[in-house]
Amino acid sequence: MSLPNPASFVCPLPLRDYPHIVMGHGGGGQLSAELIEHLFLPAFGNTQLNRLGDSAVLASPPGRLAFSTDSFVVRPLFFPGGSIGELAVNGTVNDLAMSGARPLWLSAAFVLEEGLLLATLGAIVERMAAAARAAGVAIVTGDTKVVERGHGDGCYINTSGIGVVPDGAEIDSALARPGDVVLVSGYLGDHGMAIMSVREGLAFESATGSAPIESDCAALHTLVAAMLAAAPGGVHVLRDPTRGGAAATLNEIAASTALGIALNDDAIPVRPTVRAACEMLGLDPLYVANEGKLLAIVAPEAEQAVLGAMRVHPLGRDARRMGTVQAAPQGMVTVRTGLGATRIVPVPLGEQLPRIC
Amino acid sequence: MSLPNPASFVCPLPLRDYPHIVMGHGGGGQLSAELIEHLFLPAFGNTQLNRLGDSAVLASPPGRLAFSTDSFVVRPLFFPGGSIGELAVNGTVNDLAMSGARPLWLSAAFVLEEGLLLATLGAIVERMAAAARAAGVAIVTGDTKVVERGHGDGCYINTSGIGVVPDGAEIDSALARPGDVVLVSGYLGDHGMAIMSVREGLAFESATGSAPIESDCAALHTLVAAMLAAAPGGVHVLRDPTRGGAAATLNEIAASTALGIALNDDAIPVRPTVRAACEMLGLDPLYVANEGKLLAIVAPEAEQAVLGAMRVHPLGRDARRMGTVQAAPQGMVTVRTGLGATRIVPVPLGEQLPRIC
Repeated sequence: MSLPNPASFVCPLPLRDYPHIVMGHGGGGQLSAELIEHLFLPAFGNTQLNRLGDSAVLASPPGRLAFSTDSFVVRPLFFPGGSIGELAVNGTVNDLAMSGARPLWLSAAFVLEEGLLLATLGAIVERMAAAARAAGVAIVTGDTKVVERGHGDGCYINTSGIGVVPDGAEIDSALARPGDVVLVSGYLGDHGMAIMSVREGLAFESATGSAPIESDCAALHTLVAAMLAAAPGGVHVLRDPTRGGAAATLNEIAASTALGIALNDDAIPVRPTVRAACEMLGLDPLYVANEGKLLAIVAPEAEQAVLGAMRVHPLGRDARRMGTVQAAPQGMVTVRTGLGATRIVPVPLGEQLPRIC
Repeated sequence: MSLPNPASFVCPLPLRDYPHIVMGHGGGGQLSAELIEHLFLPAFGNTQLNRLGDSAVLASPPGRLAFSTDSFVVRPLFFPGGSIGELAVNGTVNDLAMSGARPLWLSAAFVLEEGLLLATLGAIVERMAAAARAAGVAIVTGDTKVVERGHGDGCYINTSGIGVVPDGAEIDSALARPGDVVLVSGYLGDHGMAIMSVREGLAFESATGSAPIESDCAALHTLVAAMLAAAPGGVHVLRDPTRGGAAATLNEIAASTALGIALNDDAIPVRPTVRAACEMLGLDPLYVANEGKLLAIVAPEAEQAVLGAMRVHPLGRDARRMGTVQAAPQGMVTVRTGLGATRIVPVPLGEQLPRIC
């Protein structure tokens, strides 16, 4: 059995120092190793990742673990206020934070499309690294696959995360009670409309005379920690209203608890630019995705303490009460309008803006 | 602000009970919920997953955690001996096992292409569930995204996993020593050649008069546990030779330890059908991917105990010594042929068979 020249093994034949991703970058050989050594390790490097084992080995923290996963397929890869990189880090950090956890470790798995510019991947990776540093989490393990041109969309990223849930933090939809208040940490709809503004080439800013709409993409775990510290046991439910917006999230809570959620239309915070853009497109901001906002269902006696803690945090400055939890109508979300009428906020069927995250 | 009919939000408009994946299945609304309720929960359901929170909350096991991630983009989705479903479960189970860990929990994140038959997804999910049951791991958290037709390839799956590393298990490339032996758990190259056989429509079986080549896809953690128990401290390094095959894996170990690995050509186990298929295509089985085999670098005094434990395990029946670790030539893998000559096994540049996992 003779050994063919390994330089001929790769299909298609890559050029070393080629400016694009080639199939061989996903092959587990020298091209994969170069991607790791020259791109991923300089950006993400830490003791765990540097070992380059099949898995990271970590000291198990005492207590309870939170474990979450999210794939990111946002289009375009870069948008006002962020990129798929920040989104991939903050999205999983936030999923962990919504169980009250302090995020510790992330994995990062890339599915790259043949032909992606290495410079583009480099920019994404730098933004992931910066977001991870800002959030205080370490990217400890990873994976890269490459698919042929026409079988991907540049770059898809999966991040999974592990966090530790502090003793005493009990966050669960099942804890919502009639009389609880529904708090929101800030303006709704920024992320979805920022994506729409670039994807559809819409110049909302010129229509409204104000600044462009930017994604709210941010890591919420320090806000959550401040809220939990302000009112131990007072925060019952935490959710980040991403795909499907606040409408989808609140409907899920209403359905799973068989309680009603009544919102006050005047108290739903939407920036004028976002409202104008939504009206132009016939969209309801309640259904538009957010990537740096949370909804909290809080015991009424804890409301002031929690709101106070939120408002001194940079990500909760505009926090407010948006509604209340009621015994009826069971499983439904309603909005009371300024005119005194009540309308139902139905479950969205799908997503009005696909590939928003 | 008026509320448009939410049934009109989805783009493209889905039909309920539609037999294909539509964009709305990734939207976080009712179609996503139906996929979860009717497909994922019946297959994977467990206390953790059933909570449907943004993250799973788990009792932290004492000791050390192993954490790993892997995306699967294999083409075709089904092949002799397995599917992307078994691969996604066993691949991450094996990555955890290679640090000596007992796998506990997996995440499962799907990137689906618009137009995928729901029946196909159902079959994949059933195979994942069966593989998870067989491996004794629970799928505790998940995510689904949908990309437009032409921006995916049916189904990509990411699994991440958490395991617990037993006290005393110290598995690390850095522990390899000159004089250690290199063990292999069975025949090499089955997975890669099984994929090739369907992808290229090659009928190796007729060429050789024997059964079709099947993938070796299997979960190796119980084999690992038996090996560690048989010789505490005797197993220094464990790796599963997937992409790039044994050649890539052994070269990585040689490079990171600055030791040499000398293989004996006569002791490299390759099935006759796989050898014939490789020769037909001009491939070297050492470079072909495996999904149910491991390489172990073991202290010489532990060799007999470890081999004995492997050979009574169904996945280690054909285990053998394939070579030794030597002080020189540093960082290189060599093969001594039956004729007494020595050839170098170079690092593969990429992958001879792309999208093998």
